[in-house]
Amino acid sequence: MKEDTVKVAVIGATGAVGQRFVQLLANHPWFRISALAASERSTGKTYTEACNWVLETPMPEEVRGMPVVPAEPNVDADVVFSALPAELARELEPKFAGAGYPVFSNASAFRYEKDVPLVITEVNPDHMQMVELQKRSRGWKGFIVTNANCSTTHLTLALKPLHDAFGLDAVFVATMQAVSGAGYPGVPSMDILGNVIPYIGKEEWKLETEPLKILGSFDGERVRSAGFSISAHANRVPVKDGHTEVVSVRLKTKASPKEIERALREFKGEPQALGLPSAPSRPVVVMGEPDRPQPRFDLMVENGMATVVGRIRECPILDYKFVLLGHNTIRGAAGGSILNAELAFAKGLL
Amino acid sequence: MKEDTVKVAVIGATGAVGQRFVQLLANHPWFRISALAASERSTGKTYTEACNWVLETPMPEEVRGMPVVPAEPNVDADVVFSALPAELARELEPKFAGAGYPVFSNASAFRYEKDVPLVITEVNPDHMQMVELQKRSRGWKGFIVTNANCSTTHLTLALKPLHDAFGLDAVFVATMQAVSGAGYPGVPSMDILGNVIPYIGKEEWKLETEPLKILGSFDGERVRSAGFSISAHANRVPVKDGHTEVVSVRLKTKASPKEIERALREFKGEPQALGLPSAPSRPVVVMGEPDRPQPRFDLMVENGMATVVGRIRECPILDYKFVLLGHNTIRGAAGGSILNAELAFAKGLL
Amino acid sequence: MKEDTVKVAVIGATGAVGQRFVQLLANHPWFRISALAASERSTGKTYTEACNWVLETPMPEEVRGMPVVPAEPNVDADVVFSALPAELARELEPKFAGAGYPVFSNASAFRYEKDVPLVITEVNPDHMQMVELQKRSRGWKGFIVTNANCSTTHLTLALKPLHDAFGLDAVFVATMQAVSGAGYPGVPSMDILGNVIPYIGKEEWKLETEPLKILGSFDGERVRSAGFSISAHANRVPVKDGHTEVVSVRLKTKASPKEIERALREFKGEPQALGLPSAPSRPVVVMGEPDRPQPRFDLMVENGMATVVGRIRECPILDYKFVLLGHNTIRGAAGGSILNAELAFAKGLL
Amino acid sequence: MKEDTVKVAVIGATGAVGQRFVQLLANHPWFRISALAASERSTGKTYTEACNWVLETPMPEEVRGMPVVPAEPNVDADVVFSALPAELARELEPKFAGAGYPVFSNASAFRYEKDVPLVITEVNPDHMQMVELQKRSRGWKGFIVTNANCSTTHLTLALKPLHDAFGLDAVFVATMQAVSGAGYPGVPSMDILGNVIPYIGKEEWKLETEPLKILGSFDGERVRSAGFSISAHANRVPVKDGHTEVVSVRLKTKASPKEIERALREFKGEPQALGLPSAPSRPVVVMGEPDRPQPRFDLMVENGMATVVGRIRECPILDYKFVLLGHNTIRGAAGGSILNAELAFAKGLL
Repeated sequence: MKEDTVKVAVIGATGAVGQRFVQLLANHPWFRISALAASERSTGKTYTEACNWVLETPMPEEVRGMPVVPAEPNVDADVVFSALPAELARELEPKFAGAGYPVFSNASAFRYEKDVPLVITEVNPDHMQMVELQKRSRGWKGFIVTNANCSTTHLTLALKPLHDAFGLDAVFVATMQAVSGAGYPGVPSMDILGNVIPYIGKEEWKLETEPLKILGSFDGERVRSAGFSISAHANRVPVKDGHTEVVSVRLKTKASPKEIERALREFKGEPQALGLPSAPSRPVVVMGEPDRPQPRFDLMVENGMATVVGRIRECPILDYKFVLLGHNTIRGAAGGSILNAELAFAKGLL
Repeated sequence: MKEDTVKVAVIGATGAVGQRFVQLLANHPWFRISALAASERSTGKTYTEACNWVLETPMPEEVRGMPVVPAEPNVDADVVFSALPAELARELEPKFAGAGYPVFSNASAFRYEKDVPLVITEVNPDHMQMVELQKRSRGWKGFIVTNANCSTTHLTLALKPLHDAFGLDAVFVATMQAVSGAGYPGVPSMDILGNVIPYIGKEEWKLETEPLKILGSFDGERVRSAGFSISAHANRVPVKDGHTEVVSVRLKTKASPKEIERALREFKGEPQALGLPSAPSRPVVVMGEPDRPQPRFDLMVENGMATVVGRIRECPILDYKFVLLGHNTIRGAAGGSILNAELAFAKGLL
Repeated sequence: MKEDTVKVAVIGATGAVGQRFVQLLANHPWFRISALAASERSTGKTYTEACNWVLETPMPEEVRGMPVVPAEPNVDADVVFSALPAELARELEPKFAGAGYPVFSNASAFRYEKDVPLVITEVNPDHMQMVELQKRSRGWKGFIVTNANCSTTHLTLALKPLHDAFGLDAVFVATMQAVSGAGYPGVPSMDILGNVIPYIGKEEWKLETEPLKILGSFDGERVRSAGFSISAHANRVPVKDGHTEVVSVRLKTKASPKEIERALREFKGEPQALGLPSAPSRPVVVMGEPDRPQPRFDLMVENGMATVVGRIRECPILDYKFVLLGHNTIRGAAGGSILNAELAFAKGLL
Repeated sequence: MKEDTVKVAVIGATGAVGQRFVQLLANHPWFRISALAASERSTGKTYTEACNWVLETPMPEEVRGMPVVPAEPNVDADVVFSALPAELARELEPKFAGAGYPVFSNASAFRYEKDVPLVITEVNPDHMQMVELQKRSRGWKGFIVTNANCSTTHLTLALKPLHDAFGLDAVFVATMQAVSGAGYPGVPSMDILGNVIPYIGKEEWKLETEPLKILGSFDGERVRSAGFSISAHANRVPVKDGHTEVVSVRLKTKASPKEIERALREFKGEPQALGLPSAPSRPVVVMGEPDRPQPRFDLMVENGMATVVGRIRECPILDYKFVLLGHNTIRGAAGGSILNAELAFAKGLL
């Protein structure tokens, strides 16, 4: 497959995450949007007509006039990005994978299946190999690769260097999540203006479960859970974009604050080694200011593809505590999925 | 002292906390505002002229025309409520206490002194006896009783029944605090609109320190720290009033969720037994809804004098986790101090 | 009909406006909720089960266990309050009116019909007589009385005393409207957090049309339009409750600022004369502070049943300009409708 | 003066507007920051140390280590940009102008003086000639050129093409202004979270006065006022950046909606003709969507240097109405002043 020929389809292209896929794929050096698929209601319209564009940058010129096609496994594409809601993903993604498409999905539908890789490129690129298993076991010609939940992605990126260097024993996390994490229309303004909602459905379960699979080891047959404990408190706050998470960790090997900070600062992974186009130069950015990171200032560090960490200090109960911030719909959703596809492409899996 | 003759002065009456004192003391069945004191700039003006009233309910009629007097220990009052900032409190409160006034202070200046009671009426009413020690050791005719920091107050109210019933071993807390906690003008709107600030100066230290004194035991000479660990993450969110806190606790004695809930629900203290006028009928209110408490709905439960707890569930790292919400400038500031004074009055300490 | 026997049904009881009806009717001295009707989806459930309660005060005890019944013209009630959306109202309200129910509707469906009164009790109580015409022309045993759009209600309350005293010639209004005006879920948080939306569908047309009918004269057969010009700019702002409107007026008879202010201040109508239970003592409240009214402070003046006016000053183009604020879901919706029913009851129309 | 040698100083460099000057001047093709001046408190510190940076993009590398110098007329610079507050500007700007510096000021202190140009480059570039008069009358070697108030700037940019083509007779404007317009710390969060403040000190006077000078004609001796009426309602809303204004205009020559739109769309001025580096390619951008412009989407059109207009439609009282949006601290403050300096430079006035 020549670089300039990777044709990509976005399934669920008119929703908030679908729009983010479209925005990030416009002008992509390797990928070219060849199809935009959505529900029947949108079929036959142009993307401009079908889509209530909710992103701050204008809709890319190149997609404005594209016809919206049905989400059926005959789209003109080499790769499919799925921005479908979970229930639809459960129904449609297997059809695409079965028909031979590599599917890079942002949906949670298959994340927890034993033969479906749940990948953050800097954390567990080797899990991508699981697709061979998946093709065999399911008899598919294509495959599904999933990315992690938005709040999980940033937590796990910050945990990875600590786990590698010192071994994680326990992780406490409390999140303050942006409304864009709930999609569009998502959270009613009456519910969140001047308010905190200390509950997001299934979010705590995802935060307590996904990192263990992602940080687990894959032996060619199955993933062995990373084997530490996570306790999560998930909250919605009146912020538009950017999830802030406060984290405490207990390590297996004791470490000094400087060692903690260095491990985070120096962390690199395969995307950086391979120079993938969407890879942040620093997947984890460490700030030294006493009151940072903040969504207002630090959301777009590394184009929204990094996890920003600050306030590293000792924890009276576990060992260390810190704050992290990440863009929930860029690295935490569409951007993470695109990076997965770039990795697969670079490794010859497409 | 006859009930109808308790004359109270508010020192620092024009600031945000001072206004809350004035609001809560208007129409008080036992106390009558006899003096409003503030800085020189305000002296000689009426309260209406001196005060940029920031509360939502109108300024009480009875104080509108009152002259603002200097904050000097010759005010016409039986009791003094201090709404001073910490630095001024450190200078002025001893003058009032030295001159014979019982001072009920919302300032942090003396909270951590060995002979100054730090009191939440339902938690450690016996610590109030410490004033005798204080008078002796300092040679004062009056005394200072302090209340706790706003976020500490609500955390400690929720911890008390658990500590009594099961013994606390470790407490993790992450706060999402309202802007009114920073006073007025306080947090600039440019800093907090659509943002989270993951840092509040000294707040984490207060949260990790104050509960241990308040829940400690007083043997007549000194307070022995409650002796468990607390780890705090303090955050500012774009909410006007009401601090939300997510909490995980490890207990010394194992307990079932039902036992936890019952301990919280059935908790009562001296203010309830004595029927103090500002006492909530339930100091801790437990909600069963999956997404509550929320500032928008639950802030004024028990007139803002209770701590509202919800989402009690198991914690994968410690034993249990829950959410709590409390009004930061009512129970967490002026209301807490007034309740302290009511207790002192009921016990004959005034 | 004895006062204590007026049984009222709320149709569309589970929506945001329906809830406000329920809240305001609980403990009403004349009316007692006898039925709560909603769509099929809710039928058979209790009100608690069917309703996602969005108001800040708790759901009234008395309705919690009430069964939700179908919105069919056999409900057990003397009077029907309609909180239906416009399309449903157009279909269902005639069925109720036809079957003999007096219907007090918050919907816009019939507001502009020639034989349907559009009533603000202090402004055009005489238009209520139009129901006789309506019954005749439509062959109904019952009737429909509508209240005005939320932003219209408060504008018209402020215009009425000026029109009576000086004659209106032209009115310019720009609104800054709260999100609760769009119901629930209504405005997505992604659309309005930190934003202004300078457009609300049909709102400008309503503002430019409804006051002319309400302030028009009814000669027993038809309403003659008040005959002045209105230009409206409608905007949505990130405020939860309370519409702010800036207004400029040109008068037919010149008046001094004092005369303007006095006309507003001294304004009273039939509800005040009759002492209707929901009537504000002052339908228009005038404030003198340079920066008021504001939603934060002045929303609940007269229990949300008044229009609050401030900053009366000369206008370089028209004659005078001022700011007004009103509660959009109390006086501007359910409360206005209830007051209409109280007036009808007091006048023997029920 | 060679292009690459224009050294510019920013006076009042640590405040919010000063920071915007610094941000926009970094990497400027013609200007190079040679001095950053501020109050004594900051003198001797580096810019990083002296400045609480409030902008979302990081502080430019090149200024981080620059020493902050006193605001005295001996700075090493060819041109001075003044971001001083009005009172300080009144005192200091004449000293700089007297000492021979061309001063481009964002302060209001001298805007209304007869011999001081108040310039919007696309509107009244010829007024810049007034500096010769100023130098003569005041005996200064340098001069002061001012830019307009933030809300005035965008209103006037939209009015200019209409005034040129059709003649303005009356203008009604109601603003919804962002908090950044009040500087930093500026508006307390307690005042504006979920609120509207229908008052901004002096803002209405500025809106009713400044456009008449800017749109007036300069005959070499004095400016003759543009001679139409403006009525302004100024409001603060909880938006961080971007002033939205709703406008109605009465024209002297009748025009069709298409003519109105074309006049706005096709408008160009000297900055466009001269290709000034900060000039927007379109000073007025017209949008056709029914609900635009909105701060969330349209703030950074033309890098924040344009006025965005939408919803052009007929007005029942005046002739036409529309909505406009502009960036208040870019085009409305520092960016406007920089463009003034670019024009002066291009015309050989420096």
